[in-house]
Amino acid sequence: MYPFDPGVYAARNRWYVAALSSEIGRTPMERWILNKPVAFYRTEAGTPVAIGGRCPHRGYPLGKSQLRGDAVVCGYHGMTFEADGRCSHIPCQDVIAPNARVKAYPLIELWDWVWIWPGDPERADPALIPDHFELGLTDPAWKKRPPMYWPVNGRYQLLNDNLLDLSHLTVLHASTIGGADVAATQETHEEGGGWVRSTRYIEDAFMTDWSRQARGIEGKVDREIGMTFLMPGLHHGHDRFYRPRSEATGANEPILEVRVFHAVTPATLTTCHYFAASAVDPTTHEIAARTQPDPKATMRIFLEDIEATNEIERLLQTAGEFKELPLRSDVHGLRGRRMLQAMIKAEQAA
Amino acid sequence: MYPFDPGVYAARNRWYVAALSSEIGRTPMERWILNKPVAFYRTEAGTPVAIGGRCPHRGYPLGKSQLRGDAVVCGYHGMTFEADGRCSHIPCQDVIAPNARVKAYPLIELWDWVWIWPGDPERADPALIPDHFELGLTDPAWKKRPPMYWPVNGRYQLLNDNLLDLSHLTVLHASTIGGADVAATQETHEEGGGWVRSTRYIEDAFMTDWSRQARGIEGKVDREIGMTFLMPGLHHGHDRFYRPRSEATGANEPILEVRVFHAVTPATLTTCHYFAASAVDPTTHEIAARTQPDPKATMRIFLEDIEATNEIERLLQTAGEFKELPLRSDVHGLRGRRMLQAMIKAEQAA
Amino acid sequence: MYPFDPGVYAARNRWYVAALSSEIGRTPMERWILNKPVAFYRTEAGTPVAIGGRCPHRGYPLGKSQLRGDAVVCGYHGMTFEADGRCSHIPCQDVIAPNARVKAYPLIELWDWVWIWPGDPERADPALIPDHFELGLTDPAWKKRPPMYWPVNGRYQLLNDNLLDLSHLTVLHASTIGGADVAATQETHEEGGGWVRSTRYIEDAFMTDWSRQARGIEGKVDREIGMTFLMPGLHHGHDRFYRPRSEATGANEPILEVRVFHAVTPATLTTCHYFAASAVDPTTHEIAARTQPDPKATMRIFLEDIEATNEIERLLQTAGEFKELPLRSDVHGLRGRRMLQAMIKAEQAA
Ligand code: FES
Ligand code: FES
Ligand code: FES
Repeated sequence: MYPFDPGVYAARNRWYVAALSSEIGRTPMERWILNKPVAFYRTEAGTPVAIGGRCPHRGYPLGKSQLRGDAVVCGYHGMTFEADGRCSHIPCQDVIAPNARVKAYPLIELWDWVWIWPGDPERADPALIPDHFELGLTDPAWKKRPPMYWPVNGRYQLLNDNLLDLSHLTVLHASTIGGADVAATQETHEEGGGWVRSTRYIEDAFMTDWSRQARGIEGKVDREIGMTFLMPGLHHGHDRFYRPRSEATGANEPILEVRVFHAVTPATLTTCHYFAASAVDPTTHEIAARTQPDPKATMRIFLEDIEATNEIERLLQTAGEFKELPLRSDVHGLRGRRMLQAMIKAEQAA
Repeated sequence: MYPFDPGVYAARNRWYVAALSSEIGRTPMERWILNKPVAFYRTEAGTPVAIGGRCPHRGYPLGKSQLRGDAVVCGYHGMTFEADGRCSHIPCQDVIAPNARVKAYPLIELWDWVWIWPGDPERADPALIPDHFELGLTDPAWKKRPPMYWPVNGRYQLLNDNLLDLSHLTVLHASTIGGADVAATQETHEEGGGWVRSTRYIEDAFMTDWSRQARGIEGKVDREIGMTFLMPGLHHGHDRFYRPRSEATGANEPILEVRVFHAVTPATLTTCHYFAASAVDPTTHEIAARTQPDPKATMRIFLEDIEATNEIERLLQTAGEFKELPLRSDVHGLRGRRMLQAMIKAEQAA
Repeated sequence: MYPFDPGVYAARNRWYVAALSSEIGRTPMERWILNKPVAFYRTEAGTPVAIGGRCPHRGYPLGKSQLRGDAVVCGYHGMTFEADGRCSHIPCQDVIAPNARVKAYPLIELWDWVWIWPGDPERADPALIPDHFELGLTDPAWKKRPPMYWPVNGRYQLLNDNLLDLSHLTVLHASTIGGADVAATQETHEEGGGWVRSTRYIEDAFMTDWSRQARGIEGKVDREIGMTFLMPGLHHGHDRFYRPRSEATGANEPILEVRVFHAVTPATLTTCHYFAASAVDPTTHEIAARTQPDPKATMRIFLEDIEATNEIERLLQTAGEFKELPLRSDVHGLRGRRMLQAMIKAEQAA
């Protein structure tokens, strides 16, 4: 489906962020992942669990059921499913058929969020999750903010497309992190197996009032802004500020680095989950310490992206699909989209 | 459609409860019956009437129109339809074509509710309505409560399936009429032409706090719980309590009998109407007189069934149809479902 | 689609009222016209503009974007479209491909509303717009009321059908402009190229309380009520009151003429826009001056038509299409409907 070829939806044998750690507790929660209802909960020992969200008996939602110990007791007739998906109890009978089970999803809790593997559990390889220490999320030296979650009324690739094209900062985020120079600066594209990165180096960058206030930046700066897409579900951006190359003293000295993490996970065919987090480079913490960003202003950046996604989805559903007009700034994003589509098609062909 | 074979929906040449008596008055009411809009009202003499709910002229809803005497005057251009469906007046012309009419549905008002025959009026046989005296509804000796009505966002057979499998009491109604022993006890199946009955006899039955308080039962009891499905639209259950067989004195002496009546009527393809009523056996009225059930707790039982139906329908519509995993407790219900499906298919073949 | 043949929707190469003048300003507005999203705004000089409402880049709604001078800057990545639909600026590149444009819709602002030509701009002929001076809208001698706008949840032809059959006044508007004699009086049909007119002359007409109060009419009157449909989108009605022919003195003397203008424009396949305006004949202004119609009562007339349209659409969508039963009063309307359908089919064949 748009913006992919017909029949192409999402990579299944990959990790995605499914939830914030704080969202999963001792009351099961239904959340859709790759167009399936999934029931999330924690065992008594605190381990997060995800199992198929529909009871195989008569289809009652397990995500609306209750726990007994580490198992979910279907709220309708009481079939009881353990964390591995196996049925361990049926109130009306002693014999339990071996096919009386639901799917159990591999989960890995890392930092403040929980990753899920929607595909074949046998193939779930933890090494495929991006290294959280390297990202700065589990490196205690970095200053993090608590992650946020929003459900989005748009297909997931619209949000990926958004993150693959930083030229949108100039207009959509004009009042916060934007600046005319972002879109005007030619980006550098890099890629590897399963990832793409775009980077822009802006000399004597324009700083919005928001950037100055939120980030404590005074005077002229150079700015390097980039975004790396670790397919299929995580983008990590960096926004680095330097004393300008054009200055006599201190040229190129780093002032501040902000990292922003965006996890995008398909929910239904036309909706998705959006998780965001940020961290500040410890080597720039003196300045960062001065930073008192207005949380509402920061929030607005994400809400602008979500609103754009919702609006495009609305037109897709009411006005139908359409033929895109590609711009120069799409070279990077289209490459990323094609690589992700190839990843999905390779799975389908396997 | 699920849970029936493709193309199988509902029996038309049968009686269904359409409304509570109190719902039908001198202002027409639109209610959908077997996927058609129907206009209900009462004549000046108080007789309930049901006619096709869509004006044949330009499709304005007669259920949103007004009465003149015993006729409905279409709210748009004034075509006037009598209780027999015939058009008796057209404001702009004198000649009335013989095909200027809407369907008139046979109705029978019995006790506090009104039955409708959605199919061929020629074949409407009042003898096919369950005997209300025998049920206890029109036998003045029985103590009744006023019937209730709820619209349900789920296809009607989900509610029939619910009523055909009392093992759900143990979990869904754990806090009220349930008890682990209901699901654990093997049921007895009986059937005849157009009906099935399941019965469970539970020795030394477990009584929830609700059961003790609402029903005034003290000490140990035996319990016989059963449900009869008079196809296609009425279930009557009985919940009988006895001095336990295991006791030396008074063994098997009846303590209390409660009857609950559930009428389920297809509204649209994926919604239905639910009517419920109850009565208490007069021979046990001394104890019944002590019974002061909390109306909210009683209501909760029905709302739990409705909520389960809504949830299953939600997953059917979003996650699609699925293959059921049958349990031992489904033998009776699947037999009932098959018999109802055979009744529908026989009609379609005729 | 109903009430037209399958595949027949609307005439494109024609003028329709798109908006009230007061609705279009310096903030773009999205409004659907003939099942396409359109962005409306005004240039700095105040000229109304309508361009395609979907950015060709990634489909962001231009009707939710902002203006820079006389151009719309797409709210996502900043493609900038001039009033003629041409892209004049792309933030990330210098070269602008010639196909980087959206459709520009011919607009004509006349009186208090704005007309749009949804089809081929080359063929937009201003002479096809009804003469507003003749209608009384731009003739300063006529006393006008500000026009009104309502979005309607029904396909546009339902509202045209409503206006083509004044027999509905008798029932739907019984409490305001109706009267049993409207439906009972035989109408006169006239037609020409692209228009039909129905007229009823009612001797000794029945006046509702509303008619007497709102229009200041005392005593017996004759009434000529008519409606002209200038296809595809404007109906203008007249309601003329005369001293009755049956009176000895002053017979046939005009008392009052009220004109009502109804513009109906397809929005989506099953919704439409409704614009209404009215004017009073200056030659009857002495009486008209006394007229103090309750604005709420006047409003109610339009809301009754809208509610009927919404209800019929609701049944079309839930109960499906149906075969109409034509009445004598439909001869005129069916002729009008057929002529409009022929206009649409001629376009499709061209
Ligand atoms: S639906 Fe889950 S146990 Fe019956
Ligand atoms: S729609 Fe009922 S009389 Fe016209
Ligand atoms: S969607 Fe309009 S410029 Fe990108």
